[in-house]
Amino acid sequence: MPVPQNLNIVPFVSVENMMDLVLATGVETFLKELAVYIEEDFRRWESFDKRPRVASHSPDGVIELMPTSDGRLYGFKYVNGHPKNTRTGRQTVTAFGVLSDVDSGYPVLLTEMTILTALRTAATSAVAAKYLAPRNARTMALIGNGAQSEFQALAFKALLGVEQLRLYDIDRAASERCARNLSPLGLQIAVCASAEEAVEGAEIITTATADKQNATILTDNMIGPGVHINAVGGDCPGKTELHRDILLRSDIFVEYPPQTRIEGEIQQLAPDHAVTELWQVISGELIGRREAQQITLFDSVGFATEDFSALRYVRDKLAASDHFEKLDLLADPDEPRDLFGMLLRRQALISAV
Amino acid sequence: MPVPQNLNIVPFVSVENMMDLVLATGVETFLKELAVYIEEDFRRWESFDKRPRVASHSPDGVIELMPTSDGRLYGFKYVNGHPKNTRTGRQTVTAFGVLSDVDSGYPVLLTEMTILTALRTAATSAVAAKYLAPRNARTMALIGNGAQSEFQALAFKALLGVEQLRLYDIDRAASERCARNLSPLGLQIAVCASAEEAVEGAEIITTATADKQNATILTDNMIGPGVHINAVGGDCPGKTELHRDILLRSDIFVEYPPQTRIEGEIQQLAPDHAVTELWQVISGELIGRREAQQITLFDSVGFATEDFSALRYVRDKLAASDHFEKLDLLADPDEPRDLFGMLLRRQALISAV
Repeated sequence: MPVPQNLNIVPFVSVENMMDLVLATGVETFLKELAVYIEEDFRRWESFDKRPRVASHSPDGVIELMPTSDGRLYGFKYVNGHPKNTRTGRQTVTAFGVLSDVDSGYPVLLTEMTILTALRTAATSAVAAKYLAPRNARTMALIGNGAQSEFQALAFKALLGVEQLRLYDIDRAASERCARNLSPLGLQIAVCASAEEAVEGAEIITTATADKQNATILTDNMIGPGVHINAVGGDCPGKTELHRDILLRSDIFVEYPPQTRIEGEIQQLAPDHAVTELWQVISGELIGRREAQQITLFDSVGFATEDFSALRYVRDKLAASDHFEKLDLLADPDEPRDLFGMLLRRQALISAV
Repeated sequence: MPVPQNLNIVPFVSVENMMDLVLATGVETFLKELAVYIEEDFRRWESFDKRPRVASHSPDGVIELMPTSDGRLYGFKYVNGHPKNTRTGRQTVTAFGVLSDVDSGYPVLLTEMTILTALRTAATSAVAAKYLAPRNARTMALIGNGAQSEFQALAFKALLGVEQLRLYDIDRAASERCARNLSPLGLQIAVCASAEEAVEGAEIITTATADKQNATILTDNMIGPGVHINAVGGDCPGKTELHRDILLRSDIFVEYPPQTRIEGEIQQLAPDHAVTELWQVISGELIGRREAQQITLFDSVGFATEDFSALRYVRDKLAASDHFEKLDLLADPDEPRDLFGMLLRRQALISAV
């Protein structure tokens, strides 16, 4: 077998290259293509090695590792969540990820995932809504207009045909920024003065707030029959967005129950409260929305397989792109067992200069 | 508070820069300085958030994530173990790691760790031997002469004053390579024809073989009284190096029992077999070697805190070094909540060119 060349090199997608890759593809096309990978992986859910994320909590936030594997590829994401970060000009959430070949254990991709996570979270929400939202929904309330908001809006536009957005944020400037960013992109936008106003006439309600606490962004009286709730912001212990009564009236769909029971809205419910796994709906085993009056709730917390799908998608995109650098990440001695000899040869090289 | 600049940048130590950093420091000095960090962190063992490594096993190997935190810094290592890799010119073990600031969740260092792991494993072995090996040991048998061997030899030379090495490997060429690499560095070396010959007169026996199976590198009759065994190679389920009878005669010291019981030599013993935690010896709570006739065994599997120490050491070294690159890893929008706006501004920039 010929020895492959440049075994030390791992392709690396920087933030700048990720932006250029997304822009060259087009944001909506990127979201649609990514959604195909996410759906594909949900459909073969049972082939994944799954576990709750590995979290390290501290007073101000959390650092998490999210690994998974389908037996051929292995992926993990590093992601932090620090709501106070914005005070020092930092992101609440930053992330990077790695995709590896299971046969050799060698990484095949290292990429920024702050932008990619925003895209995959939005694409996953839209994939879930395809199966759960009322048919032909055209109006979405979007409550919490932070870093995730435009991506959610564009994913629902691209995948479901949402045309009208009703924005609300406790910080009106955030809603105005979101409206300004999205207006040129073909969405009709209303900036609302309250969450109550935002949900008026909305068939889909997306919540994407960021406080690390139990909040009540939606109260029970705000939720009419037939609505689909896409709850994105409640995603760690002690951080929820919906009043418990809403959960009791909803059919609840989750990614991976052992993780969602810890992190999702359903941490407010009994540990055996019935939920449906999203993959069973996507694979056709179970039905998502059965009737027009039903309230459906996607209790999204983000799962490792979605990052895996995103890593897989980016890896495939790089095959026809130059939006990456080559990173000298892996020691590659001429003779594999001679790691120390590599140092000696480097020394000889330096001495010779 | 002034907003820090270049929040997108994470210092990155490539393989080449790691080699240059090690060479500029000197291998033995590097090992000694690193050992100080390792000892320091073992001494404050109780301040660490500890868990067994997060392993993903496949037929030919394993991919692992090893996170830990002391509440101020968070570190993790990605490491694979694939014994068959050498057939395709790849390393059995490759690794990279990240150190992060717990307060913000932002990474402060990304580094290759293939070379660094070899160094930290060797430094940890030597730290353990400082407390466990017979006083004034000068001769070490080194069985298994793969990528780890020279690092072990130099760590024991630098930290314990070992002068004589007795090498054995089933592949004699490996022993000869090891001898060739080490001879100029001030060690007296004998290449031996068998493990039995290698252990003759050795006060310390280091085993560092790589087969993923239960092997018997050392049998009971080879181990005389007073010896210190440094068992490095047995480090995953189904992979051991020592005959069980040796374990029954030894006082066994381990890093983190919940992990060692799964991965170490002691997987051959009852789950409640008495072992001593190395940190208790290093912190002075318990005594390591009590008497000359005692057989001590360091059942080393490698633990996350050692990688943490290594990451911390490298981060500190970089303060007075230019052996790193600046990686554009983290999205850093001008306004933290405006991640999408960053894409829009990038688009405007590209369009203007």
